[in-house]
Amino acid sequence: MELDKLKTLLEAVARGDVAPEEATGQLKSLPFEDLGFAKIDHHRALRKGYPETIFCAGKTVEQVVEIVGRMRDHGSNVLGTRCDAEMGAAVVAAHPEATYHNLARCITLTVDPPAMLAGKVAIVCAGTSDLPVAEEAVVTAESMGNRVERIYDVGVAGIHRLFHQRHRLDGANAVVVCAGMEGALPSVVAGLVECPVIGVPTSVGYGASLGGIAALLGMLNSCATGLTVVNIDNGFGAAVAAATINRIANGK
Amino acid sequence: MELDKLKTLLEAVARGDVAPEEATGQLKSLPFEDLGFAKIDHHRALRKGYPETIFCAGKTVEQVVEIVGRMRDHGSNVLGTRCDAEMGAAVVAAHPEATYHNLARCITLTVDPPAMLAGKVAIVCAGTSDLPVAEEAVVTAESMGNRVERIYDVGVAGIHRLFHQRHRLDGANAVVVCAGMEGALPSVVAGLVECPVIGVPTSVGYGASLGGIAALLGMLNSCATGLTVVNIDNGFGAAVAAATINRIANGK
Amino acid sequence: MELDKLKTLLEAVARGDVAPEEATGQLKSLPFEDLGFAKIDHHRALRKGYPETIFCAGKTVEQVVEIVGRMRDHGSNVLGTRCDAEMGAAVVAAHPEATYHNLARCITLTVDPPAMLAGKVAIVCAGTSDLPVAEEAVVTAESMGNRVERIYDVGVAGIHRLFHQRHRLDGANAVVVCAGMEGALPSVVAGLVECPVIGVPTSVGYGASLGGIAALLGMLNSCATGLTVVNIDNGFGAAVAAATINRIANGK
Amino acid sequence: MELDKLKTLLEAVARGDVAPEEATGQLKSLPFEDLGFAKIDHHRALRKGYPETIFCAGKTVEQVVEIVGRMRDHGSNVLGTRCDAEMGAAVVAAHPEATYHNLARCITLTVDPPAMLAGKVAIVCAGTSDLPVAEEAVVTAESMGNRVERIYDVGVAGIHRLFHQRHRLDGANAVVVCAGMEGALPSVVAGLVECPVIGVPTSVGYGASLGGIAALLGMLNSCATGLTVVNIDNGFGAAVAAATINRIANGK
Amino acid sequence: MELDKLKTLLEAVARGDVAPEEATGQLKSLPFEDLGFAKIDHHRALRKGYPETIFCAGKTVEQVVEIVGRMRDHGSNVLGTRCDAEMGAAVVAAHPEATYHNLARCITLTVDPPAMLAGKVAIVCAGTSDLPVAEEAVVTAESMGNRVERIYDVGVAGIHRLFHQRHRLDGANAVVVCAGMEGALPSVVAGLVECPVIGVPTSVGYGASLGGIAALLGMLNSCATGLTVVNIDNGFGAAVAAATINRIANGK
Amino acid sequence: MELDKLKTLLEAVARGDVAPEEATGQLKSLPFEDLGFAKIDHHRALRKGYPETIFCAGKTVEQVVEIVGRMRDHGSNVLGTRCDAEMGAAVVAAHPEATYHNLARCITLTVDPPAMLAGKVAIVCAGTSDLPVAEEAVVTAESMGNRVERIYDVGVAGIHRLFHQRHRLDGANAVVVCAGMEGALPSVVAGLVECPVIGVPTSVGYGASLGGIAALLGMLNSCATGLTVVNIDNGFGAAVAAATINRIANGK
Amino acid sequence: MELDKLKTLLEAVARGDVAPEEATGQLKSLPFEDLGFAKIDHHRALRKGYPETIFCAGKTVEQVVEIVGRMRDHGSNVLGTRCDAEMGAAVVAAHPEATYHNLARCITLTVDPPAMLAGKVAIVCAGTSDLPVAEEAVVTAESMGNRVERIYDVGVAGIHRLFHQRHRLDGANAVVVCAGMEGALPSVVAGLVECPVIGVPTSVGYGASLGGIAALLGMLNSCATGLTVVNIDNGFGAAVAAATINRIANGK
Amino acid sequence: MELDKLKTLLEAVARGDVAPEEATGQLKSLPFEDLGFAKIDHHRALRKGYPETIFCAGKTVEQVVEIVGRMRDHGSNVLGTRCDAEMGAAVVAAHPEATYHNLARCITLTVDPPAMLAGKVAIVCAGTSDLPVAEEAVVTAESMGNRVERIYDVGVAGIHRLFHQRHRLDGANAVVVCAGMEGALPSVVAGLVECPVIGVPTSVGYGASLGGIAALLGMLNSCATGLTVVNIDNGFGAAVAAATINRIANGK
Repeated sequence: MELDKLKTLLEAVARGDVAPEEATGQLKSLPFEDLGFAKIDHHRALRKGYPETIFCAGKTVEQVVEIVGRMRDHGSNVLGTRCDAEMGAAVVAAHPEATYHNLARCITLTVDPPAMLAGKVAIVCAGTSDLPVAEEAVVTAESMGNRVERIYDVGVAGIHRLFHQRHRLDGANAVVVCAGMEGALPSVVAGLVECPVIGVPTSVGYGASLGGIAALLGMLNSCATGLTVVNIDNGFGAAVAAATINRIANGK
Repeated sequence: MELDKLKTLLEAVARGDVAPEEATGQLKSLPFEDLGFAKIDHHRALRKGYPETIFCAGKTVEQVVEIVGRMRDHGSNVLGTRCDAEMGAAVVAAHPEATYHNLARCITLTVDPPAMLAGKVAIVCAGTSDLPVAEEAVVTAESMGNRVERIYDVGVAGIHRLFHQRHRLDGANAVVVCAGMEGALPSVVAGLVECPVIGVPTSVGYGASLGGIAALLGMLNSCATGLTVVNIDNGFGAAVAAATINRIANGK
Repeated sequence: MELDKLKTLLEAVARGDVAPEEATGQLKSLPFEDLGFAKIDHHRALRKGYPETIFCAGKTVEQVVEIVGRMRDHGSNVLGTRCDAEMGAAVVAAHPEATYHNLARCITLTVDPPAMLAGKVAIVCAGTSDLPVAEEAVVTAESMGNRVERIYDVGVAGIHRLFHQRHRLDGANAVVVCAGMEGALPSVVAGLVECPVIGVPTSVGYGASLGGIAALLGMLNSCATGLTVVNIDNGFGAAVAAATINRIANGK
Repeated sequence: MELDKLKTLLEAVARGDVAPEEATGQLKSLPFEDLGFAKIDHHRALRKGYPETIFCAGKTVEQVVEIVGRMRDHGSNVLGTRCDAEMGAAVVAAHPEATYHNLARCITLTVDPPAMLAGKVAIVCAGTSDLPVAEEAVVTAESMGNRVERIYDVGVAGIHRLFHQRHRLDGANAVVVCAGMEGALPSVVAGLVECPVIGVPTSVGYGASLGGIAALLGMLNSCATGLTVVNIDNGFGAAVAAATINRIANGK
Repeated sequence: MELDKLKTLLEAVARGDVAPEEATGQLKSLPFEDLGFAKIDHHRALRKGYPETIFCAGKTVEQVVEIVGRMRDHGSNVLGTRCDAEMGAAVVAAHPEATYHNLARCITLTVDPPAMLAGKVAIVCAGTSDLPVAEEAVVTAESMGNRVERIYDVGVAGIHRLFHQRHRLDGANAVVVCAGMEGALPSVVAGLVECPVIGVPTSVGYGASLGGIAALLGMLNSCATGLTVVNIDNGFGAAVAAATINRIANGK
Repeated sequence: MELDKLKTLLEAVARGDVAPEEATGQLKSLPFEDLGFAKIDHHRALRKGYPETIFCAGKTVEQVVEIVGRMRDHGSNVLGTRCDAEMGAAVVAAHPEATYHNLARCITLTVDPPAMLAGKVAIVCAGTSDLPVAEEAVVTAESMGNRVERIYDVGVAGIHRLFHQRHRLDGANAVVVCAGMEGALPSVVAGLVECPVIGVPTSVGYGASLGGIAALLGMLNSCATGLTVVNIDNGFGAAVAAATINRIANGK
Repeated sequence: MELDKLKTLLEAVARGDVAPEEATGQLKSLPFEDLGFAKIDHHRALRKGYPETIFCAGKTVEQVVEIVGRMRDHGSNVLGTRCDAEMGAAVVAAHPEATYHNLARCITLTVDPPAMLAGKVAIVCAGTSDLPVAEEAVVTAESMGNRVERIYDVGVAGIHRLFHQRHRLDGANAVVVCAGMEGALPSVVAGLVECPVIGVPTSVGYGASLGGIAALLGMLNSCATGLTVVNIDNGFGAAVAAATINRIANGK
Repeated sequence: MELDKLKTLLEAVARGDVAPEEATGQLKSLPFEDLGFAKIDHHRALRKGYPETIFCAGKTVEQVVEIVGRMRDHGSNVLGTRCDAEMGAAVVAAHPEATYHNLARCITLTVDPPAMLAGKVAIVCAGTSDLPVAEEAVVTAESMGNRVERIYDVGVAGIHRLFHQRHRLDGANAVVVCAGMEGALPSVVAGLVECPVIGVPTSVGYGASLGGIAALLGMLNSCATGLTVVNIDNGFGAAVAAATINRIANGK
């Protein structure tokens, strides 16, 4: 490790074998990240209690099986997203301690369960077609130590269903709202709660929904101030943002 | 007129001056629209009680002043849209019987007031910036014999304001809803009424509102079934559609 | 149900067990939709005689079979759209009283036939490739109690075919026009009729048709004033709008 | 007010003048928002200590002057955004207690200073051209009781400038990062902090920056997980989101 | 036919059985297209010697087999485009006198060979991937009586190959140039010939070729004045335009 | 000139001063365009009787005045397009033999009038806002020796006006049709004539017309086969294409 | 060959059989490219030591097998890109001296190994999903005589990994950087090196990555001055550009 | 400076005042960029002989005047781009040693003239409207010590003009080609030279040129392999890339 090199150098300075001026020059040539930067980066992930994550789409089954194994061997919890059923089965076959979440298309492998945070994160979705995105958010948030309140199938076409379950939003420190088509649900939810709301446009829809672009634009232009947005179908990213807010709210 | 030619021809047939076979040939060479098509087209406008309309943008003041005069001389009511204040002033100076509607950016000149239809058309708008589009719809609908109910400044950010005025939507045979930004208001209104709702996306907004495209896409992808949409800022077109529905509802 | 809570509260007030002031506070904390809002919403659908609808795409066969069954058990007529042949067969196998409409890709299950409205709705389409969208509109409109006049294969490339059948448009209270490519047919039809026309851009075309965007833009920019538009391939939505107009024209 | 009607009704029930059953029916016909919904909505804004806000663009000077006056008369703090210098001068002339923030293009009028929250919000921006957006965020956040740390001119082209000021990010409960062009700065910042980061794409750039769309897409596709995004140039919205997170972090 | 009705009416006028005034009214109610319009339209196609064409994509094999048969029974030559190999085999099996053009994905069935025009049409293409589009143009042009000069694989990356074959462009009355990617070939060809050039952007390319949009924009913005363009991959349309020019050049 | 060099070289070969092998080498090093290519290019323009053209937009008044003068001194006819009134006045002041065409925004300076072609070119436009584009086409076509038939203000909203003037299309060897909004007019015209039709989308419209993109897409997707298209507002290019067709039809 | 014709002609001039004037005319009619242009073009490729390349996508296996064979028979090295595994196997079966590069989806067949250039080209990529594009660049660069330094999996989400390997960039004369999603990696690399950097946006991503458009826009708008960009997924093109720079740096 | 702190620390270690272990910890807490990173970054710019650059657009005259002064005081050469005439005059008035380049819209202030590189950079442009972009590239390249060959007004519409000047491309180590409209010129140039070619799409054009997007797409999809591209109108960036290549070719 570079840290050893640094110590060796400093000891040489202490012994008088290397002059301070020469040491200065040598220090500049050391890759700076070895002076702690990389480690901090690495440690931060662990300190937050976040799992190591793998974006499985575009990787081979063999690659994912191997990466999961390596991460587990390093003692990390693992979260794999965008993992289809076939790949999920192969991972579970190879690593029986892993779990495949069918609807969420996620793998989790928990070496060391995260401490649960106080408060909760609510995950809301408009229709059954949005479920995979919402469940990806649920699995992600839970893997980061959040209690999750699922509020599903409350699209704006039957907005009374949302109002009926409104009390379940109470106590949430962050709300993730998944919606396709015109993407209006996050605006409505943002009008009902006082905590931050994160909109996830989904690619649900057809024609001029443009694969989720209409929902994305709808959320970006929302008149519900303070709503923030992530990429289309990015349940994972929204959950990380919500988990981060919940952690902050827990004073961590 | 061609009708005279037709009569003359048929009288010649009746007199035996022209043989039926020859008349057949001559008839085929007459432009068919002169057999009444054009007139029907013309008469239909008048029968509906609709004014002749001028899209003023892209025309010179002189052109508009002249066209208004010619229409009036033909006994038509006149509606000019997208007419800026300067042009409006020039038209009123030239034709004192004309009225300039400042907020709606419209000119009207009424030779023969249209018969008022039973029922009403409601014009709803989200914010004060949508007012010019909404008022264009109001002036258009009124010029076609519709009683208009204005319900303004009821954007979804403060949706209780709309619910407060909900009863004013009662009795409307058609509702026009103008909204910019994410364009969610028509969906909400469509959930409250049983009559047809026509959404008008407005170019109000900035950034990813893309000059009204976001609102347009939002309305097209609305989960409020049965909502139909017109072009961005097209208050005139929406009002014509609403007036046509109201006329149908009046059994005309 | 919340209604019971309300009654219990009011009876307590009547008995003097609860003071009016206290009741006011308790009432405010009741979810408002339980004061009838949700029910009105529910009843309105039934009162209109509209079936309950399912957007089948993106749902599993099992989900659709179950939803259809549940709706029927509640005494509702059912309309399922975007249902492919395999799913349709499964639904009919499970619910023999259901009908699968092959060309329209729709399921219907009629518990209580809707009362037929006077007048009719015309469904016009440009080419044979537009038929699935047009038939979705037909099945939808019929399921809502409308007599439907089909006028098919009358694209603007051979516009005389439309003119030949022009009389079949007479008596329609609303016309739905489905067209892909440049989407010009609704403009032409709107020039021939006096009732509202609803354009449905279809995804028929290739290259710069951009999956129906060209047709959509064509209809939105139509110089045939009063034409309104729905999403690409949304035959269902157009039919609901037309049915609503026809119901209004029937004075309902 | 409807509340009075409710009390009157409940007193009649208490007196036995109205039977509970009848009261149930009457209650359902009351507009629900009058049962406190609107007020709650109103009170929530005040309870949060947020000012009433005006989006000045698209309004006339007269309108803004009047609205500011009315809000102040109701005892509200006022924040006006997108207010050009001329309008700002007019507002200050009419309401000398108002302040115009030149760079932020904002007006503030403070009737009752908000309580300051613990912790802070950092506002970071890439270049001097992004300053108006960043300053709008600063004025907004401060008007909501947040201490703000400005970290300006730290674009990724000279990323060492950001690293130099890295310690100033410590202690922030939320960071707002404004950047145009390729919009990479929020990703970099998100790699340095543990709190939520909100990206604001700005319209700074030319050519293929497409008025901020390139920056927006860059942020939405960021590999820095957990980053959320608001509309182009929407410093206000980002600040509200950050303020909401900070409030949550303060346990409110 | 309506023509008979017209004759009968005129004969009645001649006989004095119908007064001219009454005849006028009856004439107006006749669908105008029956006064020859439709027939002219029909005859024009035949007079030009153009085949009846079928756009096969989106039709079933059964539909195409039947339409081909019906057209042949009416004595028309038939051209079917966008016909895949399976459909082509079925058509040839059902109608052995039909020919399937594998590369062009076209069917032809010639009842009455068109007279050959003087002069020729040149069809130029950039690469082997553009061949299907070019061959569709070839089959189309030949089916309309044009001699065709094929000049293939002369993309601008090896522009000397085009210059080598330049003399083969001589004598062409119209040139069709098919090119994907940046679509520069039509510009180069237009600089070499004096006759009209029609560009066909093809969907060949990847990434920012956007399915042919880049080539389309390139051709529309060409500095080679007088170049005109058709839809992406529309070899058929370009060939019809070229055939029309060649016919005009033949004085027909 | 290089031609002289070539002659000198060949004479040296003839005299035996230069060996054939050496001459081969020297010939290869001559810029090939000097062997006549450039001259052919230059002569072709003159032989066609086309004027030299200047795209004035983006040039300074001084530049345009100078270029016009230089072209005239070389004996060329001159056509300047996209020339605003101020620039036009300056050119006419400097070159009194030049003419400024106000509506067309064109300058012409005719040194040697082109021979008139037989037949004619028809220029059709939809509305008065399309006039500048149509007139640019007229001035261009006339400057190339074409008789022009103007058929204006015949938009599809009142299509009978076009049918009334249908006979004026007779005898045209090419038709240019300018239309904005949905761009449907070229399709209609193409259904009425047998000669080639060139569509010019104009930037007339608003909202979802996207500055002429909607009209462009409409024309590219037209079901009127054989229609070809030029860039938005490119009246000049369309006229050159039409003039080329007319020249071909004149056997030149 | 045309060169022979030229020699024959010049010899005839030398013999006095052809007069210089006549020779001039004959020379002009020779296709100019035969005077060396084409050959230079051909020779240039060989002189650079570049292989002949085939874009295999959109070609049949038979076509590619034949082209590879023909090129080899002409003594050229061959590089085939976008060649799937099945096609690759067929080529290797037919030409056992060929090599199929599985990850790069490339075929190479080396007749005459290129001379190796001094210096090196670095190929950097962000994630494992970008590997096919990066490997296409590697195979291409190596086939052109470049030593390649692979620096993989150094995405900006863990930027310390790049800094760790920073020294491996030393000595590169050009760097190719492949990245999808927001495409920020080329900007970071460009800040670390002094040689030219070429960005390759990849189609890796989802939702608003728009198939690589987001990454492309990010690179085009990079604040890292001097970065240049190629088409999405165009590893081949980037490698050719890098190889050309390396050749220039080698003084060739 | 931090370097001093480092030296002080190391000297303390050398003196034995600080133990090596303790020094390690202190070193980690030093901001790493202070260990030379920032300075290296700074020095690299100077070592390359590049001027400090200011993007003037979006800055005030006062800001630019001040920044220029500060840079000069630090002994840097200065290059300001996108500087309009008024701002340029103000800078020259304040700093008489500065030069304003009118056509290039650039300011330069040379404290220490850069050493001239061997070889040259060619800057090519298509039309006079592209001159501002080309001249920005010229001024930039010259300010970095490059000899520049200007080859202007050689658009592909008159490609013989380029061929005439072809020899002027000889000896260039990099070529920058600026072109608007369809952007085909870089492809043509890339076919003529053996050094790297950098395309600069310009916003010259109208209609479907989409402000330079058509030219950008054309260049990205060019079949001239090895062409790389920068942002629309980015003459500065292209020149920096070319200068970097030229420096590499000079072995620096």
